[in-house]
Amino acid sequence: MSATTAATFDTAAVKTYLLDLQARIVAALEAADGLPFRTDAWERSPAPGAEAGDKAGAATVSPPSPQGGEGDKAGPSALSPPSPHTGEGDKAGAAFNGGGGISRLIEEGRVLERGGVNFSHVTGSRLPPSASAHRPELAGRRWEAMGVSLVLHPRNPYVPTVHMNVRCFVALKDGEAPVFWFGGGMDLTPYYGFEDDARHFHATCKAALEPFGADLHPRFKDWCDRYFFLKHRNEPRGIGGIFYDDFAEGGFEPAFAMTRAVGDAFLSAYLPILERRRDIPYGERERDFQAYRRGRYVEFNLVYDRGTLFGLQSGGRTESILMSLPPIVKWRYDWHPEPGTPEAALYTDFLVAKDWA
Amino acid sequence: MSATTAATFDTAAVKTYLLDLQARIVAALEAADGLPFRTDAWERSPAPGAEAGDKAGAATVSPPSPQGGEGDKAGPSALSPPSPHTGEGDKAGAAFNGGGGISRLIEEGRVLERGGVNFSHVTGSRLPPSASAHRPELAGRRWEAMGVSLVLHPRNPYVPTVHMNVRCFVALKDGEAPVFWFGGGMDLTPYYGFEDDARHFHATCKAALEPFGADLHPRFKDWCDRYFFLKHRNEPRGIGGIFYDDFAEGGFEPAFAMTRAVGDAFLSAYLPILERRRDIPYGERERDFQAYRRGRYVEFNLVYDRGTLFGLQSGGRTESILMSLPPIVKWRYDWHPEPGTPEAALYTDFLVAKDWA
Repeated sequence: MSATTAATFDTAAVKTYLLDLQARIVAALEAADGLPFRTDAWERSPAPGAEAGDKAGAATVSPPSPQGGEGDKAGPSALSPPSPHTGEGDKAGAAFNGGGGISRLIEEGRVLERGGVNFSHVTGSRLPPSASAHRPELAGRRWEAMGVSLVLHPRNPYVPTVHMNVRCFVALKDGEAPVFWFGGGMDLTPYYGFEDDARHFHATCKAALEPFGADLHPRFKDWCDRYFFLKHRNEPRGIGGIFYDDFAEGGFEPAFAMTRAVGDAFLSAYLPILERRRDIPYGERERDFQAYRRGRYVEFNLVYDRGTLFGLQSGGRTESILMSLPPIVKWRYDWHPEPGTPEAALYTDFLVAKDWA
Repeated sequence: MSATTAATFDTAAVKTYLLDLQARIVAALEAADGLPFRTDAWERSPAPGAEAGDKAGAATVSPPSPQGGEGDKAGPSALSPPSPHTGEGDKAGAAFNGGGGISRLIEEGRVLERGGVNFSHVTGSRLPPSASAHRPELAGRRWEAMGVSLVLHPRNPYVPTVHMNVRCFVALKDGEAPVFWFGGGMDLTPYYGFEDDARHFHATCKAALEPFGADLHPRFKDWCDRYFFLKHRNEPRGIGGIFYDDFAEGGFEPAFAMTRAVGDAFLSAYLPILERRRDIPYGERERDFQAYRRGRYVEFNLVYDRGTLFGLQSGGRTESILMSLPPIVKWRYDWHPEPGTPEAALYTDFLVAKDWA
């Protein structure tokens, strides 16, 4: 079972949770960093040519597909509720005409070189037919999407980059029950790998999902490995984590509870890693490798990530969406690390799908 | 008129021209830089999942569309022969199964911080139906695509980044005349604008096209302004130049001659600008602004450029395709130059569609 029509969707409860989650995460990160995050509240204004699939935009990104669930083995990218905040791992909708968000950002922090923890709540007047081909009963419905999405790029190359997102989508029609689903996940992108960190991150993800069924973690871990993959490099983006979409199993309360468990697990999954790596001495070599590897992050987010692409092409708030990009990035032709170096170990020991938990 | 069936397409003549063009441009750039370019010859090997529109790839990029010509006002990006070298301004095909290329590259040169001048000749066993919807008679044909594509990122922020590409596409069937078209163009992306440079670049483009009809330059300049545009920034990539595609007007000889004129004009369009700006003193401020603006180049190439995206998603040679990306790039949240500065003048005086020639 995937998206459902249970009548119990509680928009206010989800919004309250997400705003509180954003506040808690930012407060903890400010405490860890020592410097405050900036706050930018914004409202959505319709952009010219903001329709999905606009031919003037070269890459055509599909609008949300409220279709079957994760069982669709064509790939997770086909399953997509809209939620254009930082875009990272998110998916997007069409014909946005309302809503806004709160972007919380830091640049040149003591630990975080650049990062954003963004909340958004966007609404649409009607779901386009292309978005509801598999669920024709949803065509033309009003819809809402809400989420929190974060990406953190620490300065110290021994501290991994991290992404987390929780989101939900609701299709509404007067006199009928709302159709909704949740999506989310988190994934870790180290520059220098540590087995302890990988195990801790994955174990925390696994423990968060455990109360909701032992099958969830293997499914969501595998989904993550498949989603955050750079086909043109034949390389995972990082060491993975969990990813899910189109999730409404059990109805609103259980699905929302599972999504809360994911959001709530972020700080315990990431902060201990940040704390134990933040003071490792590094030099130009490590910074250089970090800048090179960050290029892969840019490539994934701009080439593959559906939320990023659709957000950019549909008139999303560019500066919030692109907070996921690293502060300094390098590209270098056909570069490969020397065998036996810590840089080579990233490729051989960490950028491979593995059971860490 | 656009793609044509004139029986006179001369593959060998085009290939000879393109290889010679690559050699001449590299020789001139080596002389200007003082350091040699590296040479990497490569052969195409089919990649897993190399079909166009593969659902595992998030952004769906259309395969080549041998349809109507530039009159299609939906945007130039809909008109696309394959030629996956650096990808820049190029368009791509599907189900590649042969061919290769010669990449000529420089990094850490005296003048050029990173740059590539790439030749490729790729072939396909059959044009997919999706590529020939508007010309059903082409479905299933063998095809070839050839081109030279270059992007140069100079170190000195006063020297603009430049892109040039010439390419052709042929659809072949035993017993029938080949169907072919040409595409190409060049565009300039300054960090600090100079009116003299903009006028010289555009005037050189205009003069190159002049012998082939006074109407071509306005058409191709306008096409360039529309193609190299970042919708999510509402900003041109640079000051434009010329861009064309699906061009076979007059048949093989005139269309090839015009394409030669474009390729041959590159050195006289760009080298004088490089020579007169290469020794202007600069400091950290200018380098920083250059790195920030280079972010826009990355955004365009990875989000919008059809050749880049299709090349990456269809198993093209990643390192050759991504030679178009700058060596060092910075992203910064919601940054705007101070009014009255040279950085602000780039936005107000140069990043606007303007008649320079």
